[in-house]
Amino acid sequence: MKKLINGVDDVLSESLSGFAAAHAEIVTLGAENKFIRRARLTPGKAALISGGGSGHEPLHAGFVGYGMLDAACPGQVFTSPTPDQMAAAAEAVETGAGVLFIVKNYSGDRMNFEMAAELLSGPVETVVVDDDVAVESSTFSAGRRGVAGTVVVEKIVGAAAEAGRNLASLKALGDQVNARTRSMGVALTSCTVPAAGRPTFQLGETEMEMGVGIHGEPGRRRVPLASANRIAEEMVAAIAGDLGHEIRGEALLFINGFGGTPLMELYLMHHAARSQIEKHGARVARALVGNYVTSLDMAGCSITVTMLDDELAPLWDAPVETPALRKGR
Amino acid sequence: MKKLINGVDDVLSESLSGFAAAHAEIVTLGAENKFIRRARLTPGKAALISGGGSGHEPLHAGFVGYGMLDAACPGQVFTSPTPDQMAAAAEAVETGAGVLFIVKNYSGDRMNFEMAAELLSGPVETVVVDDDVAVESSTFSAGRRGVAGTVVVEKIVGAAAEAGRNLASLKALGDQVNARTRSMGVALTSCTVPAAGRPTFQLGETEMEMGVGIHGEPGRRRVPLASANRIAEEMVAAIAGDLGHEIRGEALLFINGFGGTPLMELYLMHHAARSQIEKHGARVARALVGNYVTSLDMAGCSITVTMLDDELAPLWDAPVETPALRKGR
Repeated sequence: MKKLINGVDDVLSESLSGFAAAHAEIVTLGAENKFIRRARLTPGKAALISGGGSGHEPLHAGFVGYGMLDAACPGQVFTSPTPDQMAAAAEAVETGAGVLFIVKNYSGDRMNFEMAAELLSGPVETVVVDDDVAVESSTFSAGRRGVAGTVVVEKIVGAAAEAGRNLASLKALGDQVNARTRSMGVALTSCTVPAAGRPTFQLGETEMEMGVGIHGEPGRRRVPLASANRIAEEMVAAIAGDLGHEIRGEALLFINGFGGTPLMELYLMHHAARSQIEKHGARVARALVGNYVTSLDMAGCSITVTMLDDELAPLWDAPVETPALRKGR
Repeated sequence: MKKLINGVDDVLSESLSGFAAAHAEIVTLGAENKFIRRARLTPGKAALISGGGSGHEPLHAGFVGYGMLDAACPGQVFTSPTPDQMAAAAEAVETGAGVLFIVKNYSGDRMNFEMAAELLSGPVETVVVDDDVAVESSTFSAGRRGVAGTVVVEKIVGAAAEAGRNLASLKALGDQVNARTRSMGVALTSCTVPAAGRPTFQLGETEMEMGVGIHGEPGRRRVPLASANRIAEEMVAAIAGDLGHEIRGEALLFINGFGGTPLMELYLMHHAARSQIEKHGARVARALVGNYVTSLDMAGCSITVTMLDDELAPLWDAPVETPALRKGR
């Protein structure tokens, strides 16, 4: 294993210290590394809290800040945070308008966020993100997995919260964005979890894992490496097939790198996926390209499509100022 | 070779098409892919143009936009752009206040930018960036190499150009930022150039290349992989030794990923490098962490330190709106 680390037990705490120091104008690290929170809160705004296993950086802590999350709880690598983390985060950032949890659909995360909700006295709602069309259930999940579409949910709901919408309305909006969002991924290499010290899975020199999850868990099938155009064609067909008649009008196309693939290839995939989406009848009206929901050093990418409308597009465009995503106010 | 591409001959053009489509609100792709330029120019502002081999994305095209470059010329992977590219870019974005070329110190780039300057009729100045303290000369360079510090030069000079400073003043400022900036890198794996199809160099399972260049060219020495703290200690010592008595006061600390290293490790390196810099007597007053000057899929990172002052700090903080770097206006 080749990594820029000291001891494997210190990776998370040292990384969080570096993150908090680098972005001190936006975020603060909570006691015992339980959460990352906004440095400045907006009293009376519903508090948006997410979290999950580490190793997907910049998700989730990179999306804490104006226009997105109020706090994020980092678990150990690929391991859910514990309920006391979410409870401590909620106590720190709740300012009278309740708490919305945004949770990726993995069994451990759901259970722990549910337990956290029971610990809290005030109103709590939860949006579960399950955008991955690749498989119905997988190693760590019952039902579809929550993957890169989580960024879209956090951005759009975050903008609505900033605009003063109440908890019930934000919960409904989050569910709606999730329902309009589909993703699928492909891996060209495995990732290596520091504590494991070896690749999570083995892929042959000419193989790819189509439909891979963001922890390297299996997808639909292991097949010979294909061209970017063929990969985009298959992934967009899966997404479009699942969207059915909804694939009309304006779409957000989000090409997400898993961490080990050069930006040059991600833009190339954006080019490839865009023409596929247009063949299916949608127009790509908004774009996001980059490493936003990673799997440590895994090579590969996912394609996420969110069907926009007159409500969602302006919320996507709204100002945001977080370590990982910024748009001017 | 495992890459998300179609043919190796089409990587650059398809990637540029995807880039231009994804960021159409900020940039436009020039005819024959000669350059990426701002969609909207500011008449009377000196035009900042950079460029170089592709494979370092987001450098340089990702830094075209308000507050940074007016245009960037992409060569083939790790190959200088040709003089007609820079000349065409200058013609497209020059609005009466002259042209400033920002050039990384590689023999091919310097020669081609010089030839471009001769093709132009209006005033042209050139800032050569040579921030890499690792080696005095290397595979593609006479004198020090220009590496991640280029982003700092482009950002600070870009802010000054936006503020209306004239060409001579911008040239002097660029030279000053370069003189206050030092970098050094380390590679944990090689990169793979698409047209070559195999790793540029071989590193053993437990080796690293200390002082590596951004094309995978050799550094100071090949040594056993060390801890993040030891790596940071050696790189910061090299930088601080070279800065000499100048390492007093406020510093910008920039941890740059080469493309294949997870963000989690980059933040950990930021934590490690910060304490080393403070041991040498400087205070880390600004930070940048991420994959900004990459070497395709190479694992590893570089550390860049720029000594700030009352002139440079506000220019670093000034608003910027480019595909790869944004700060609110």
